[in-house]
Amino acid sequence: MKALAYQGDGKVELVDKPKPEIKDPTDAIVKVVYTTICGSDLHILQGHVPTCEPGRVLGHEGVGIVDEPGSGVKQYKKGDRVLISCISSCAACSYCRRAMYSHCAKGGWVLGHTSDGTQAEYVRIPLADSSLHPVPEGVDEKALVMFSDILPTGFECGVQNGAVAPGKSLVIIGAGPVGLAALMTSKLYTPAMIIVIDRDVGRLGVAKKIGAQETVEAGNDEAVVKKVMDLTGSVGADTVIEAVGVPPTLELAQDLVAPGGNIANIGVHGEGCRLKIDKLWGHNITLTTRLVDTVTTPMLLKLFAAGGLDAKSLMTHEYEFSKMEDAYSTFKAAAQHSALKMLISM
Amino acid sequence: MKALAYQGDGKVELVDKPKPEIKDPTDAIVKVVYTTICGSDLHILQGHVPTCEPGRVLGHEGVGIVDEPGSGVKQYKKGDRVLISCISSCAACSYCRRAMYSHCAKGGWVLGHTSDGTQAEYVRIPLADSSLHPVPEGVDEKALVMFSDILPTGFECGVQNGAVAPGKSLVIIGAGPVGLAALMTSKLYTPAMIIVIDRDVGRLGVAKKIGAQETVEAGNDEAVVKKVMDLTGSVGADTVIEAVGVPPTLELAQDLVAPGGNIANIGVHGEGCRLKIDKLWGHNITLTTRLVDTVTTPMLLKLFAAGGLDAKSLMTHEYEFSKMEDAYSTFKAAAQHSALKMLISM
Amino acid sequence: MKALAYQGDGKVELVDKPKPEIKDPTDAIVKVVYTTICGSDLHILQGHVPTCEPGRVLGHEGVGIVDEPGSGVKQYKKGDRVLISCISSCAACSYCRRAMYSHCAKGGWVLGHTSDGTQAEYVRIPLADSSLHPVPEGVDEKALVMFSDILPTGFECGVQNGAVAPGKSLVIIGAGPVGLAALMTSKLYTPAMIIVIDRDVGRLGVAKKIGAQETVEAGNDEAVVKKVMDLTGSVGADTVIEAVGVPPTLELAQDLVAPGGNIANIGVHGEGCRLKIDKLWGHNITLTTRLVDTVTTPMLLKLFAAGGLDAKSLMTHEYEFSKMEDAYSTFKAAAQHSALKMLISM
Amino acid sequence: MKALAYQGDGKVELVDKPKPEIKDPTDAIVKVVYTTICGSDLHILQGHVPTCEPGRVLGHEGVGIVDEPGSGVKQYKKGDRVLISCISSCAACSYCRRAMYSHCAKGGWVLGHTSDGTQAEYVRIPLADSSLHPVPEGVDEKALVMFSDILPTGFECGVQNGAVAPGKSLVIIGAGPVGLAALMTSKLYTPAMIIVIDRDVGRLGVAKKIGAQETVEAGNDEAVVKKVMDLTGSVGADTVIEAVGVPPTLELAQDLVAPGGNIANIGVHGEGCRLKIDKLWGHNITLTTRLVDTVTTPMLLKLFAAGGLDAKSLMTHEYEFSKMEDAYSTFKAAAQHSALKMLISM
Repeated sequence: MKALAYQGDGKVELVDKPKPEIKDPTDAIVKVVYTTICGSDLHILQGHVPTCEPGRVLGHEGVGIVDEPGSGVKQYKKGDRVLISCISSCAACSYCRRAMYSHCAKGGWVLGHTSDGTQAEYVRIPLADSSLHPVPEGVDEKALVMFSDILPTGFECGVQNGAVAPGKSLVIIGAGPVGLAALMTSKLYTPAMIIVIDRDVGRLGVAKKIGAQETVEAGNDEAVVKKVMDLTGSVGADTVIEAVGVPPTLELAQDLVAPGGNIANIGVHGEGCRLKIDKLWGHNITLTTRLVDTVTTPMLLKLFAAGGLDAKSLMTHEYEFSKMEDAYSTFKAAAQHSALKMLISM
Repeated sequence: MKALAYQGDGKVELVDKPKPEIKDPTDAIVKVVYTTICGSDLHILQGHVPTCEPGRVLGHEGVGIVDEPGSGVKQYKKGDRVLISCISSCAACSYCRRAMYSHCAKGGWVLGHTSDGTQAEYVRIPLADSSLHPVPEGVDEKALVMFSDILPTGFECGVQNGAVAPGKSLVIIGAGPVGLAALMTSKLYTPAMIIVIDRDVGRLGVAKKIGAQETVEAGNDEAVVKKVMDLTGSVGADTVIEAVGVPPTLELAQDLVAPGGNIANIGVHGEGCRLKIDKLWGHNITLTTRLVDTVTTPMLLKLFAAGGLDAKSLMTHEYEFSKMEDAYSTFKAAAQHSALKMLISM
Repeated sequence: MKALAYQGDGKVELVDKPKPEIKDPTDAIVKVVYTTICGSDLHILQGHVPTCEPGRVLGHEGVGIVDEPGSGVKQYKKGDRVLISCISSCAACSYCRRAMYSHCAKGGWVLGHTSDGTQAEYVRIPLADSSLHPVPEGVDEKALVMFSDILPTGFECGVQNGAVAPGKSLVIIGAGPVGLAALMTSKLYTPAMIIVIDRDVGRLGVAKKIGAQETVEAGNDEAVVKKVMDLTGSVGADTVIEAVGVPPTLELAQDLVAPGGNIANIGVHGEGCRLKIDKLWGHNITLTTRLVDTVTTPMLLKLFAAGGLDAKSLMTHEYEFSKMEDAYSTFKAAAQHSALKMLISM
Repeated sequence: MKALAYQGDGKVELVDKPKPEIKDPTDAIVKVVYTTICGSDLHILQGHVPTCEPGRVLGHEGVGIVDEPGSGVKQYKKGDRVLISCISSCAACSYCRRAMYSHCAKGGWVLGHTSDGTQAEYVRIPLADSSLHPVPEGVDEKALVMFSDILPTGFECGVQNGAVAPGKSLVIIGAGPVGLAALMTSKLYTPAMIIVIDRDVGRLGVAKKIGAQETVEAGNDEAVVKKVMDLTGSVGADTVIEAVGVPPTLELAQDLVAPGGNIANIGVHGEGCRLKIDKLWGHNITLTTRLVDTVTTPMLLKLFAAGGLDAKSLMTHEYEFSKMEDAYSTFKAAAQHSALKMLISM
């Protein structure tokens, strides 16, 4: 079969690979129908994820059809249409029992990381019963790939951890796909004001369309702080979501949060940053980190099926799988191409 | 009257001052019976609290008798025995309505800070109705001064913010009065294992008496981390409470916390520290800060009256108020004198 | 001044009364601009509220202008435009400190109940600082009377107590003003399905307009249960809100709730009902009751000012205060007149 | 093998049965070492559980040794010592994912109910991986049978659902094994006052030993209400736990609860009762029901291993399995024999 493999040195290539096979009775082989590219895939290319070795088939997002369920798989049969979760979970270990699937003793983030992923014609899904979701009837399967990772990530790591609630004020730093997914799902809790900050004016425009009341162009931190203070009665925002992943943005978040507020980190960080504890120690702040657990995926799918989430608005480009290398090129230069999520059709 | 005033330059002195007077109808003048010295008082002496100016009468803890209630005071009358809260609150502003008395629009930490405090024969208590508590019948009033600040501080900023719960593991860094108050009140939630870390072997002995299952001598961070990992099945502690207030201890806390765990900062910090977000971003960690709100003081008093808290075990020395300067000397050299809280009788 | 007084025997009458005067320094006299009629007012007329005696000026909802603040009132001055809360609260008693203003030691529901109310040219507001809210700039003051009672009641007693959450299913029994207020505010948490049940087809039509996906005509309980089961995959609804106040509807609620679900009672009940504990003991159900605390009024006002609540859609009729008796006649025959809330202008 | 089988008509008998066999790869056959008798077993004898048919081997509590794990069992191997949970759970269905194992799509209460139980030499445990717990090292296995059902039941249905918290007041109605289990586990949250009500003076004595501050003899409801009001400052208890299961006790609970309080039903009820909604509608009450989910069993085991729960104090009698019929006779006449839990050794 054809598969997109990480080649080391920042490179990916479409290669021929043997079709994956069942290794454990709880595995399922899934024929991929749609997949997409994630910011984490670029992190791998940049060499930031040493646990992902060259030769690995990338991708942890996708929609597909069960081709062969392992003998221990009970929830799915050949031909079932499924959403693939970016997190594999056994459901039974102590972390899974606490709804922390991200730290599953047998799973976690394995697809396109420590096991071959979804940017291929077929993928082996470990722990299939608890790592796949049935495709709801009547939904647009292209938009569904947003539910493999970015929508639960924005919602769990940003919105839920950030305690977004009706009437609150919210700042989102970073209007990439995950920041916009946080924006889209924050509206499920009806904050009174959403402010989005980014360097890219095009992305700020998308943020406005999705529902941000205010947008602020990044660049001058002092001006950004002043603007947010002006918009929030000089106290700062109840919730600040960091969706970039570099020290300056997480440090900026600390200047934007109101007393009693929440900083919810979503960004994947490659280095430490400064904690302004001399200022924050008496401000009753909660700062959270989280690798998405995908525990809310069934709920988000239910809302999507009910018409409550315009997931498709996060998709900007479509490619045939044979043009996968071009899709990577476009995604790497996202700003230049006004790119958010790329839909890849097999 | 006699009062202990901050003189600048690290000095305090017993001076003569006019007895305070009602300024606002919601004030009450309270005759102090017992007071004590807090670590924050030493912070003031060290010049770390510039908002506290020389000449200020120190002290935000105490038990007393209402001498003169203002005309707007409804809950207390002359002669009532009262516990003085370290936090003054109006009860009606938006912060007070959210139970964030520490940020009260008219109050917060004012006693011994921006208004003359309790280390004096008399003190003016602003917003008396909502900043005093009736002394429960039959309790030891000497032990009661622990309820002005350190017990609610340990409980709210450490135990509650740290989400201590039955069966969980807990590390407390720092066995000073506030760390020990966190230890004492953590037992209200019955964690399965409490580990206390300090440089002072004497204080670790007190921690054992109060209920720590394990104690670890600080000094070599690598050895401390190894010990805590050994005691927690190599995952770290569900909750880590920081009760020191310097960068190395808050950085150590980040190495001791288990995935899914909580770091609860109590320490008053004079400088920033490192946030190891490159390690923690995917660990589902919650880090909290808080200035005590004293919202739990009535509950803690109820438990104390019911015999459920051995508050007196935190008191190591007793002084007459006339020897207040000696009390400060002893407290400044706490390790040398095995000092925790000093009880000062008027 | 003119005032609408309860005359006993189901009657109300516009009478002449002396203008109210300050009794306590924390009182304020407010000139009423808009008021409305509540279902509770009809309960009084029906003799169900024996604590409300004949002669009482009715009404606990309204918008007005501060005419005379008592000497102890600090938040408001003459001329301030204010929203009157149906609940008076001192902010300082142990119930108020727990955000249970409904049980305030000095307040609770007093207006138009144990103290003369808002259906008059002037009203004395006890505990004014914590029982009034500033009118937000730029809002429609006619719609604002919905915030005195029905919107916080629907939200607190129904939506919040019922744990409505994104993606959940919700049944509301009763599409009167409070049931519709619950419907309107339930959308702040984006349930996936809202089903409204009522006997009045006209009200079901309004429910559809406000956002119910499904409506069910009441009458035949068996058919209602079947319909709800069909709509919820045969499990019942995650939340059932009772907004009628008679035994049959609260008993029906017990047949509509899913295992693990919530029954949130809003209705004011004059008699007991059956608790089907033989069926429910093993169903992991939570049943709640609540008298509105109005703790969420500031938040709801903030959302209203931000354009997030179409409060005006609950208003169906407008009357001059001189026609107040006609307004009562219309409201008593609500179904016949398709009446929800009546706006009364002074 | 020998097994205790329900014979219909209120009878049990020790009979010969074939040793159970693996039916599904996720089953395990466990050799029983200790078991006990539950109040639910008596309900079955009384004919209250029609889903349990004559011939059924009773028992859902026990400690044993894995004799044969099915091919799909991954967590346990032959020879492992295990605690058997009264609830079987698949861990993967939507109820299990919400921690509602009691409603597991494939499990729930099956042992000694719809599948042969633990009062036998061997038992087949369905869904073994997620329905057994490893025996912690060094614990008393006799006391361990209290963790199969009554301790998690008292804790989850009573203490957690009842929101018991530090400093709160608590009433427990019923001092049978489950009521006492609620009492023992309520202390994990350190309420300030625990009052236990029962008709049996002997059981009240045990309650005092386990930690009740006050006990009240049942019989005259008016006197009971007066006593509880006297002990709670005339407001009632913050939490009332019902651990009997008949209408009068659940109706009494409604008279004992304070405004803002919780009624947590544990009792298994055979008929409906009266809900005093005419009194409670405005009292901000939460009433909960629950079939134990056993989600807290691992936590309780951890505390037990750490020495934090004196589970053995609930065991009053010991029998050899060959005398099982005598054990039932004693347990049926519990009051006469001062019987709580019977330990049965194989």
